[in-house]
Amino acid sequence: MSWLDDVKWDEHGLVPAIAQEAGSGDVLMCAWMNREALARTAEEGVAFYWSRSRQRLWKKGERSGHVQAVRELRLDCDNDTVLLRVEQLGHSPGIACHTGRHSCFYRRYGEGAWHAVDPVLKDPGRIYK
Amino acid sequence: MSWLDDVKWDEHGLVPAIAQEAGSGDVLMCAWMNREALARTAEEGVAFYWSRSRQRLWKKGERSGHVQAVRELRLDCDNDTVLLRVEQLGHSPGIACHTGRHSCFYRRYGEGAWHAVDPVLKDPGRIYK
Repeated sequence: MSWLDDVKWDEHGLVPAIAQEAGSGDVLMCAWMNREALARTAEEGVAFYWSRSRQRLWKKGERSGHVQAVRELRLDCDNDTVLLRVEQLGHSPGIACHTGRHSCFYRRYGEGAWHAVDPVLKDPGRIYK
Repeated sequence: MSWLDDVKWDEHGLVPAIAQEAGSGDVLMCAWMNREALARTAEEGVAFYWSRSRQRLWKKGERSGHVQAVRELRLDCDNDTVLLRVEQLGHSPGIACHTGRHSCFYRRYGEGAWHAVDPVLKDPGRIYK
């Protein structure tokens, strides 16, 4: 399928995949996709990623229920990054981060350090029972 | 400087860096940063990246004038992706892409292909004189 061949996979067969919340525009997370993850995301309309630490395909929300419904898939000018515009399901407001926060980007730089500035919306112990 | 050591640089000493327009929330581009790029971005308040193709530090907008003023720097939960909230300078509306488009993510997936759906705001021949 040529649209998958259009993607410039890196030496590990991966590209970064950015998930952005369609409603708010918030950047929720950045993970990795291999060819199969991108193909299944397009087919099933929910986000699949490749876990580098576990070396396996991973359906976002498979344990947490925090599934991402994909509204739009985009590719950048260099063909080496994918952008997903998603609806973050399973909690309101949406929780994309395994720490129970809305976004994985919850630390802000200031005065020579990273500071957690966004609240935990749900205790991870209750998310991953 | 420990905040730079907090970042989990990959085997090439790099992390993906996502630039998001602060005003609109639009994801403009994804590039790469090494330690020096991140340090100078924090110091100077404008975005620096590492060009993998040219293997050199690159100040965004050095040729085009499309500099990115950094309003906020964020780090994700895995310490391996940086998010920049920027003001995209040099043109209104902002042009982040070398093709003269607002965002590098101008192609949308549909029916087995990627389709360019966003307009060219300025001829690249006029940007890179």
